[in-house]
Amino acid sequence: MNRRGFNRAVLGSLSAAMVPAPLLHAARAPEHAADPQINGPRLMEQLLQRMAGFGKNPEGGVSRVAYSDADLKGREYVSGLMREAQLEISVDAAGNIMGRRAGSDPGLPALAFGSHIDSVPKGGNYDGPVGSLGAIEVARTLAERRIVTRHPLLVTIFANEEGGLFGSRAITTGLPPDELDHPSSSGKTIREGIRFIGGDPDRLDAARLRKGSVAAYVELHIEQGGTLEREKLDIGVVEGIVGIKQWEVVFEGFANHAGTTPMDRRQDALMSAAKYVQMVNRVVRAEPGRQVGTVGKIQAFPGAPNVIPGQVEATLELRDLDDRKVDRLAEAVMAEARKIADADGTKVTFRPLHANIAAPTDARVRAPITEAARALNFSTKVMPSGAGHDAQAMAQIAPVGMIFIPSVGGISHSPKEFSRPEDILNGANVLLGTILRLDRAMA
Amino acid sequence: MNRRGFNRAVLGSLSAAMVPAPLLHAARAPEHAADPQINGPRLMEQLLQRMAGFGKNPEGGVSRVAYSDADLKGREYVSGLMREAQLEISVDAAGNIMGRRAGSDPGLPALAFGSHIDSVPKGGNYDGPVGSLGAIEVARTLAERRIVTRHPLLVTIFANEEGGLFGSRAITTGLPPDELDHPSSSGKTIREGIRFIGGDPDRLDAARLRKGSVAAYVELHIEQGGTLEREKLDIGVVEGIVGIKQWEVVFEGFANHAGTTPMDRRQDALMSAAKYVQMVNRVVRAEPGRQVGTVGKIQAFPGAPNVIPGQVEATLELRDLDDRKVDRLAEAVMAEARKIADADGTKVTFRPLHANIAAPTDARVRAPITEAARALNFSTKVMPSGAGHDAQAMAQIAPVGMIFIPSVGGISHSPKEFSRPEDILNGANVLLGTILRLDRAMA
Repeated sequence: MNRRGFNRAVLGSLSAAMVPAPLLHAARAPEHAADPQINGPRLMEQLLQRMAGFGKNPEGGVSRVAYSDADLKGREYVSGLMREAQLEISVDAAGNIMGRRAGSDPGLPALAFGSHIDSVPKGGNYDGPVGSLGAIEVARTLAERRIVTRHPLLVTIFANEEGGLFGSRAITTGLPPDELDHPSSSGKTIREGIRFIGGDPDRLDAARLRKGSVAAYVELHIEQGGTLEREKLDIGVVEGIVGIKQWEVVFEGFANHAGTTPMDRRQDALMSAAKYVQMVNRVVRAEPGRQVGTVGKIQAFPGAPNVIPGQVEATLELRDLDDRKVDRLAEAVMAEARKIADADGTKVTFRPLHANIAAPTDARVRAPITEAARALNFSTKVMPSGAGHDAQAMAQIAPVGMIFIPSVGGISHSPKEFSRPEDILNGANVLLGTILRLDRAMA
Repeated sequence: MNRRGFNRAVLGSLSAAMVPAPLLHAARAPEHAADPQINGPRLMEQLLQRMAGFGKNPEGGVSRVAYSDADLKGREYVSGLMREAQLEISVDAAGNIMGRRAGSDPGLPALAFGSHIDSVPKGGNYDGPVGSLGAIEVARTLAERRIVTRHPLLVTIFANEEGGLFGSRAITTGLPPDELDHPSSSGKTIREGIRFIGGDPDRLDAARLRKGSVAAYVELHIEQGGTLEREKLDIGVVEGIVGIKQWEVVFEGFANHAGTTPMDRRQDALMSAAKYVQMVNRVVRAEPGRQVGTVGKIQAFPGAPNVIPGQVEATLELRDLDDRKVDRLAEAVMAEARKIADADGTKVTFRPLHANIAAPTDARVRAPITEAARALNFSTKVMPSGAGHDAQAMAQIAPVGMIFIPSVGGISHSPKEFSRPEDILNGANVLLGTILRLDRAMA
């Protein structure tokens, strides 16, 4: 059934904007009532004419890395948009831009939604800004329609997502103090960067959100994979954000003269590493599921055409919604790698680099996302997020959900990243419908 | 039969030094006569106390790269030794140090022997100096014993061997003019380097040796492989110097997000490269022979743990005594690599980097080497040289031969490079015996 068409026919010209806000609120819109709609052209103009200009690269896309001048300009721009959306703005100690709007019930915790505007170096125009500008437009649409929600609303533009969820982790799990001294892509340390965008790295604890202070967090984001586009689906309802573990992997053999060392007398670290690369692929694919395993980095040393590699540095990355599966696969890969090294007379070591635990989304947030999408007659798919997101940190203090829209070709972290305007608008409208439904459903 | 023991018994105290040189020469020493002997302690003192000091590294070995200050000091030192050996010294346009000694027959071409004293960065004390100082000691021993050969003698200390046989190629095949502008390990261009050591890069043609101007060239060198030591043999009689071909190999796939791109939707350039590394090993070992194939260099791009490699740069190097085998193996490797890329949806390209044609040694030089070794009761093995040597260039204008001595553990181009003093002395004595036998045998 084309529910959107039905609603339009029944409600005709009854627009939410024409009804005084308190009345709309008091009446509790029935399930079949049409949600207000996002201003699509305005959202696209903000995204592609304005936001894309901050850190624009000659070859397309942007380099708007966190704590850079381009980041600062982008933040000023979204702050202006948030003011137009009648949000009360503050920058917390971690540099997150927070936009608040009061609800009608002062006892309720806030409904939070947002994303980030920083990019990877040579990134695209969609990863982050779609969810950030979409969230601001949701607030602006509600303000324009004078719809007052029961819950306070909190639009969150998180700082330095791409560097490792720094803004969202700072206010949820907290940051280990040593991370403040790590370098960021801007060249500044995290500490210097936080100060640069108006935060206070010495008072991060003051910005922590306690459990229960947020009723729910919803994030709109591009899929960054090709599933929705390939299956011709409109909306992804994220069932969880994968856990990620990374290791540095070093194979050691013996560097020697490539001309004078017979083939059967070599301890070639690259021979072991080559078998390892294929083994990782085989082990990860051996069981059903959507887990992924990647060797993204490899380099042989000393690295001359005429020297047998004595050392090879590589990596291992494993991702799955189930942390136990990640650990099980890691054990299998390490055991197989040791077998390869033993057989070759080489040595292998694994050094942990980075770990993110998996974050399931909450059924209480997934349900209104699905309902909002169906109310607009969109096809949906429940799917994992293979990438990390601020929602992962927010899951530590609140029920979370994520709305995905298609990425053409699944390309991301690239100037070629692209989502169609109609999909962006669809996503923003689903976010709007989700917030209204959460406002009705959540305590 | 212990021929050395026999000679000693028969000849007793009859030392060559006690016989006037012209008499020795005129008498033509019979086959069983003892050759004069090299002064072992003096040779070792020159090699390890003096030569090893020029470019000495704190961690052992030397960095005496061609055209460096350390190279210059080493050249001054060997020039002094050559003068003590009563050689008439000149530096040719390519910077080679040439030490001449007149023979008794003015119509005969020179017997040439020598090596080089430059090293690779962080090299050892034996690759080059053993043959260079050994050759000078041969000349000095003959001078001390007042033995005058029929042929003129030419001791050759070739310039910049490690950079690519620059000195020896300049006076044989000639250098392509563009190579003069290439950088050398010293930081200087080849042109600047030649000038730095007293050559004249504008007059290289004047230094060319024509075919027939050299009766034979003999080079003493460490094996740089582990065969002689492993098989407990004294002397290697080199049957030829391998041909070498190198390529840069690039695999292209598609870089994408490692979290959001399912395993069956990847164009992972590293998966293809890993199969390639193993395939090279398999193809090269599939047929009998002493050919070697090496992938010494590999690097994935962009090279982050969380990005599927879009490009992998690697190399291919093939070596064999038979250039046709090198070409046949190259064709097989390229065909297999294309099959791998086709199956994986990636692309592979091969770009030639460097080629050295194989240089067989001459039976007329191998025979006296073998005889000289057997006269000293040394075990011998006919073997290829897997490494390149100045003899390779000299083979273009004269019959050549090479004498190998054992390298402990086969380690070379490393501070750990080591040959035992007794093996070094053995090699120098075989060189001396070879020159005397060539002098009798060659026209």
